[in-house]
Amino acid sequence: MSDAIEFAQRLIAAPSVTPATGDVFAEMEAMLAPLGFEVHRFLKGEAPDGPVENLFAIRRGPSGSKHFAFAGHLDVVPPGEGWASAPFTPEKRGELLYGRGAVDMKGAIACMVEAVRHVPADTGTISFIITGDEEGPAVYGTRALIDFMAERGEEPDLCLVGEPTSVNRLGDMMKIGRRGSVNIWLEVVGNQGHVAYPHLAENPIPRLVAMLAELDSLTLDDGTDWFQPSNLEITDIEVGNVAHNVIPAKAKARISIRFNDVHSGQSLSDKVMAIAEKHGGHAKPIISGEPFLTPPGVFSQMVSDAVESETGVTPEQSTTGGTSDARFLRAVCPVIEFGLVNATMHKRDEAVAMPDLDTLSRIYTRIATAALTS
Amino acid sequence: MSDAIEFAQRLIAAPSVTPATGDVFAEMEAMLAPLGFEVHRFLKGEAPDGPVENLFAIRRGPSGSKHFAFAGHLDVVPPGEGWASAPFTPEKRGELLYGRGAVDMKGAIACMVEAVRHVPADTGTISFIITGDEEGPAVYGTRALIDFMAERGEEPDLCLVGEPTSVNRLGDMMKIGRRGSVNIWLEVVGNQGHVAYPHLAENPIPRLVAMLAELDSLTLDDGTDWFQPSNLEITDIEVGNVAHNVIPAKAKARISIRFNDVHSGQSLSDKVMAIAEKHGGHAKPIISGEPFLTPPGVFSQMVSDAVESETGVTPEQSTTGGTSDARFLRAVCPVIEFGLVNATMHKRDEAVAMPDLDTLSRIYTRIATAALTS
Ligand SMILES: [Zn+2]
Ligand SMILES: [Zn+2]
Repeated sequence: MSDAIEFAQRLIAAPSVTPATGDVFAEMEAMLAPLGFEVHRFLKGEAPDGPVENLFAIRRGPSGSKHFAFAGHLDVVPPGEGWASAPFTPEKRGELLYGRGAVDMKGAIACMVEAVRHVPADTGTISFIITGDEEGPAVYGTRALIDFMAERGEEPDLCLVGEPTSVNRLGDMMKIGRRGSVNIWLEVVGNQGHVAYPHLAENPIPRLVAMLAELDSLTLDDGTDWFQPSNLEITDIEVGNVAHNVIPAKAKARISIRFNDVHSGQSLSDKVMAIAEKHGGHAKPIISGEPFLTPPGVFSQMVSDAVESETGVTPEQSTTGGTSDARFLRAVCPVIEFGLVNATMHKRDEAVAMPDLDTLSRIYTRIATAALTS
Repeated sequence: MSDAIEFAQRLIAAPSVTPATGDVFAEMEAMLAPLGFEVHRFLKGEAPDGPVENLFAIRRGPSGSKHFAFAGHLDVVPPGEGWASAPFTPEKRGELLYGRGAVDMKGAIACMVEAVRHVPADTGTISFIITGDEEGPAVYGTRALIDFMAERGEEPDLCLVGEPTSVNRLGDMMKIGRRGSVNIWLEVVGNQGHVAYPHLAENPIPRLVAMLAELDSLTLDDGTDWFQPSNLEITDIEVGNVAHNVIPAKAKARISIRFNDVHSGQSLSDKVMAIAEKHGGHAKPIISGEPFLTPPGVFSQMVSDAVESETGVTPEQSTTGGTSDARFLRAVCPVIEFGLVNATMHKRDEAVAMPDLDTLSRIYTRIATAALTS
């Protein structure tokens, strides 16, 4: 019998709404230290985006052996209202284990810990790259861990991120890539005035509307072999003028683009800025992440084989969905994401099927072993 | 020497930020009663748009004589900050009299009171239609006065509204009409979702943008002999979505149309509602006022002659600018607006040139006399 369920309960019982620090990391350290891991914990950043706690743990294999990394996050999104049981008190009902983080992704981290118990230490080097801020701005999280590793010359050969990628049943989907993401703030400045005297004012709204109509009509690309087409959404417009008879001085909007590897955050920002300026406005982009792609090959086959051996299911190799910390880890080594069923992630009554924890532990053992011995 | 300046000081000294009640009306009654006017004062409405005080005063001429009405408002807009002297303490500096309402329009009402002193009672019937809510929502103001008059069978033949219509010097402009005004609230409802999964959501913003682009491109008309072209302004857009990765459920906007007598509030509302529905949204109009026009003729000539006699200036017969209570009085009888120089209206350090008060009193005497004897 595996200890994954017990590990998951211990992690869930330590509240860790993003950004997370303290208890949940102490639990993690208490699990890893007895397994021979050298555990580094450090705080980074200040309010409002911090402080964030990060953990890097490593168990070194023989000199010259390969280095495989598990990555993930111990922070969780706020529980919200209406749970059937207390969100930070793990509760078993039937075959489900309830609690915030059960699938996203304390459950998966528990499986990683259980998995390494079954990989002999002399197989190779294994590390844990665990942050307390993946659900928040992620400024002081995995980025800081990558810096920490670079300073020490720690270079994993392959990295598995334990995000909940499965959709209907454990094993049906893995992520070999994720789209990049950029949010762009648009603004048009005019001149305030009275609606009865429009010639004395300059309404910024028609220019913003024309700009948004042009942006909405763009076809960014038609998709690639591995990615769906890039997509632009207008997510907000804000004028904030309560006076019925006033022409406002300023009009603002925000767009969000999820893009594949045909583009970069900068190439899209340049395109949008040009359109904004054409309509007499300006644009301020914030690139959240570049796309990543680990094209189907040896690593994806290892993951797929491990999943198939334990579940009988061949995982779809997907690049859909939101962003994850793989956007940062891509700079270090090839990254693939695989984890629990995501049906209840970020929802109330988040829950994991306890048999899935045992199965995922065995899958992770297979992946780590294959990665270190191939 | 006229008493207009003293009357103006007394009215300014009674604070009356819209909606107004009480002291300022007591002052008005105290001025009119000694001149033989029967004074009616009544309160109307409740918070937040009321209570509003209204005053109807009448001095009846011989049976069968004509009935001429002066109309105006004793409420004022809030004074705001930064005045050189206290806004509700009338202060003379040089030839200017300072105070909130000096030109809009306690000064003009003082001139009306002074004017009737010089119209013998047997010339005809004169009335005052004075509200405490023209600057606010105007729901319980002049509309209520019109109802009050209708119930009593009081029917003026002509009405002069004392709004500050002069621009650079007293007499350079009168208003023979005003455009109508309608504000229309637009809304498009979609389905909320995550920007990474747009196929599961329905973004309302592109439909709102297309709707606004079409509305902005409309040519409502090319103007008429007396009116400039009708004009549509988009005055607000509101989505209110702070989450960068969320496609919002709803998008709203507001437009304001100032329109000439080619249209009615309803005809424009119908046109906008059809466009809104075409783009999958809906529209909710609130008509603030229909246009009014007193085409150049006998009445405008009386006003023009009176102005010219006292100032040497021929007033431009304008229909530009915002709305006034003439939008309501138009239903009772022909209306024209003429009053003080509006350069400081609604501003800090609002002031009237004291010689203008004397001149305007004489102009009003001439208009009332002509109206009753023509
Ligand atoms: Zn996650
Ligand atoms: Zn006024």
